[in-house]
Amino acid sequence: MTERPKNCDFVLFGVLGDLSRRKLLPALYQLDKSGLLSSGTRIIGTARNDLTASEALERVEKTLREFVAKGDLDDNLLDRFCKRFHYVPMDFSELSSYASLKETLQAEQTAIFYLATPPSMYATICSGLEQQGLAKQPARVILEKPIGHNLGSSQEINQAVARYFDENQVYRIDHYLGKETVLNLLALRFANALFSSNWDNNAIDHIQITAAEQVGVEGRWGYYDDAGQLRDMVQNHLLQVLSLIAMEPPSRLDAESIREEKLKVLKALRPIDESNCQEVTVRGQYQAGFVADQRVPGYLDEDGARNNSQTETFVGLKVNIDNWRWSGVPFYLRTGKRMPEKRSEVVITFKKQLHNIFNDTTTELPPNKLVIRLQPDEGVEVQILNKIPGLGERMHLKATNLDLSFNETFEKKRIADAYERLLLEAMQGNQYLFVHRDEVEYAWRWIDSIVAAWDNNEQPPKAYQAGTWGPVGSVSLLAQDGRQWDE
Amino acid sequence: MTERPKNCDFVLFGVLGDLSRRKLLPALYQLDKSGLLSSGTRIIGTARNDLTASEALERVEKTLREFVAKGDLDDNLLDRFCKRFHYVPMDFSELSSYASLKETLQAEQTAIFYLATPPSMYATICSGLEQQGLAKQPARVILEKPIGHNLGSSQEINQAVARYFDENQVYRIDHYLGKETVLNLLALRFANALFSSNWDNNAIDHIQITAAEQVGVEGRWGYYDDAGQLRDMVQNHLLQVLSLIAMEPPSRLDAESIREEKLKVLKALRPIDESNCQEVTVRGQYQAGFVADQRVPGYLDEDGARNNSQTETFVGLKVNIDNWRWSGVPFYLRTGKRMPEKRSEVVITFKKQLHNIFNDTTTELPPNKLVIRLQPDEGVEVQILNKIPGLGERMHLKATNLDLSFNETFEKKRIADAYERLLLEAMQGNQYLFVHRDEVEYAWRWIDSIVAAWDNNEQPPKAYQAGTWGPVGSVSLLAQDGRQWDE
Repeated sequence: MTERPKNCDFVLFGVLGDLSRRKLLPALYQLDKSGLLSSGTRIIGTARNDLTASEALERVEKTLREFVAKGDLDDNLLDRFCKRFHYVPMDFSELSSYASLKETLQAEQTAIFYLATPPSMYATICSGLEQQGLAKQPARVILEKPIGHNLGSSQEINQAVARYFDENQVYRIDHYLGKETVLNLLALRFANALFSSNWDNNAIDHIQITAAEQVGVEGRWGYYDDAGQLRDMVQNHLLQVLSLIAMEPPSRLDAESIREEKLKVLKALRPIDESNCQEVTVRGQYQAGFVADQRVPGYLDEDGARNNSQTETFVGLKVNIDNWRWSGVPFYLRTGKRMPEKRSEVVITFKKQLHNIFNDTTTELPPNKLVIRLQPDEGVEVQILNKIPGLGERMHLKATNLDLSFNETFEKKRIADAYERLLLEAMQGNQYLFVHRDEVEYAWRWIDSIVAAWDNNEQPPKAYQAGTWGPVGSVSLLAQDGRQWDE
Repeated sequence: MTERPKNCDFVLFGVLGDLSRRKLLPALYQLDKSGLLSSGTRIIGTARNDLTASEALERVEKTLREFVAKGDLDDNLLDRFCKRFHYVPMDFSELSSYASLKETLQAEQTAIFYLATPPSMYATICSGLEQQGLAKQPARVILEKPIGHNLGSSQEINQAVARYFDENQVYRIDHYLGKETVLNLLALRFANALFSSNWDNNAIDHIQITAAEQVGVEGRWGYYDDAGQLRDMVQNHLLQVLSLIAMEPPSRLDAESIREEKLKVLKALRPIDESNCQEVTVRGQYQAGFVADQRVPGYLDEDGARNNSQTETFVGLKVNIDNWRWSGVPFYLRTGKRMPEKRSEVVITFKKQLHNIFNDTTTELPPNKLVIRLQPDEGVEVQILNKIPGLGERMHLKATNLDLSFNETFEKKRIADAYERLLLEAMQGNQYLFVHRDEVEYAWRWIDSIVAAWDNNEQPPKAYQAGTWGPVGSVSLLAQDGRQWDE
């Protein structure tokens, strides 16, 4: 059963912001509902706004009513949750603000500071906390992405935080690591001999990681245009998933062992630079088109768009990992906005059967696949070939899915949001689902080289119509190796 | 699509007998219904009884109405089927009978003789056919089990048939080889790299083959008592299934390649004799008990029972195959009457995961399994470990079935009876699902040694209560190796 974390003071910087409203407050509510917050645990929200206690509570309640699923709302629970909640108006750059925060905190319980603010505030906030003696062990700080914009800026941020907090106090969120199926990936890989003994270049042909969104920039054009899809999705989520798939089996399931192995993968990524960039990367930018039967504008026609932006909204990459396990096994990554569907998945394609004794009836034997779906419905599939029942067909074969859809299999159990798990783990002091400073920096090092190569070759991103799977180059990326994306 | 066999004259010796009525005539009807009998194909029934054509037809129609599933009966089809049917009364020991059979046959189409008679008649019938010139190529003869009672008698039968028919004209039926899932076993093994590359003593811990019946001797006490479960089920069905599982991959999917590989398995079976019989065999005989909530009598209280019979109604075996692939991988076989359920299945248990990084939450990692169900519902399951969704459990794992039930998956397609497939293959002249003479004889050689060991040690079979899984020795057979039957 659940280990309920000890009492803590959970401090939410930026409690009125979008992330807090959509994700963090609802996640805390769900944890409370599941009995995973101990009775003395308090939630302390801070923001610049000068609200009274009751005004703040009103906002919190309104937020929960808006963002928690109807069936999970309950007046008694809302009440209990609100009793945990305290609001402290703060000017993050004012030292006196931290003094009043300190007054609100209870010295005898661990404080956890969640910085749901722009990263430019991290140094200021950490410094303020430290000056009031709030950064001492066992206090923890949770950081949201983006941790920087490139290696330099991420080092700056990490360095600034490190001035006040030890690395074992720092919890860098990547919400992909909180997903049920990403955790299940660990179970699949390491608890099943059938997979663990077939997890290398002897058994696997190649691996695909897709993170496709239907949405466009959603009114955040300016912010997004500074980042682009490579920084926004690949540097963090896709490389994290790739690391978990590719890492050597850790000896133990603890933060140190796992993060060490993930780091080794990031260090073994074959660099992409001007010499190979043309061959292994595809950049795209969406034009007007149709998504889910709705006409949608092109990237350059979105509200607030700059006319000549060359920011990519689609990235396709062929990634090689230069180590013993993965030599010769490419990882194909793609992520984009305005794709035909919202779909995140990992497809592990095993080697083809080289000799075909069924060629009378089945000329091509499709390879076995392990499909791990992250979105929209989490699940696992194993694709194997079976004989089609029937006399006539004799030995006619067909790829069939052995399917484990989590929602159906596990009695329609509610799948917790990634943030719920991550907040819980942070309260329990488990760092294994959080990203180590070194991971962030090695990921940036690799990404920066791609960005530099793109900048130098001065080619604009290829256009693709909204509602398609990106520019044709994405197809060629695999076709040149005789492969294709799993559809 | 189906290759419809050419016109043939299908001659059924013993057309009024139980097998013909329950299995063969309904199978021929279903083939006709599926359009798999060409228009000129005729069915010629023979038996001792002096029936007129119309009396015989009446019997056939009655049989079909009794044994074909209601939904598959159709007056037009019955009519068409009856038009194909001709009856020839025969005294099998009278040469003149074969002359009148010959008159009925059409010289220009292949004659296929199905001997649904006691094996003691095989020599007589084959000789009669030969004397009328009916045994010449391309005529075929299909033989039902039992091919003998031991090596000597099986050699006699095979030798007698071989005097008149070449081995490539002889089709020995083992209806297990006609089952959809047994064929699918070939597809699973040889079309899927995930299995074919893990099909040996590196990846597999052990294999279980179960063929459990709920029924008792069903009024055939005398016949059954002469045979016993070892001869009745193991010598043929279980050893055939074992051979398909254990054989080296054949280069081609043809009769010669497959039967050669199966034969090599039978030759590599480690002999069971007095030296190891106690350790690797279990014999049981059922006593009164309850099956499916019905009280049933013991074996010695059945109609026609001899008081002191020591015939086994249950066999458990630990079988070793002494070759490179299977050294160290035991095959556990069990088959019995009056078991708790009717169930035939093959369970391939892969090796345990030796290192467990989940031991905080899951102390024992169950091994992966591939389960091939032959009866009652044909299907395939892969058992893998998944994380139980949920926050609390963290990394709590659970064995989950990735399930392919044929009936559900393939659009409730009707699964053909094994006899339909086998009759069709015989009409097409494909021997790959029929048993070669050498297989029969090597299987008997191995079985005879067990029988001799049992006879010599003079211990009666162990009693087990009807409705249980056999004597406790069956549990110990695996327990002594630290294993247990899959339930």
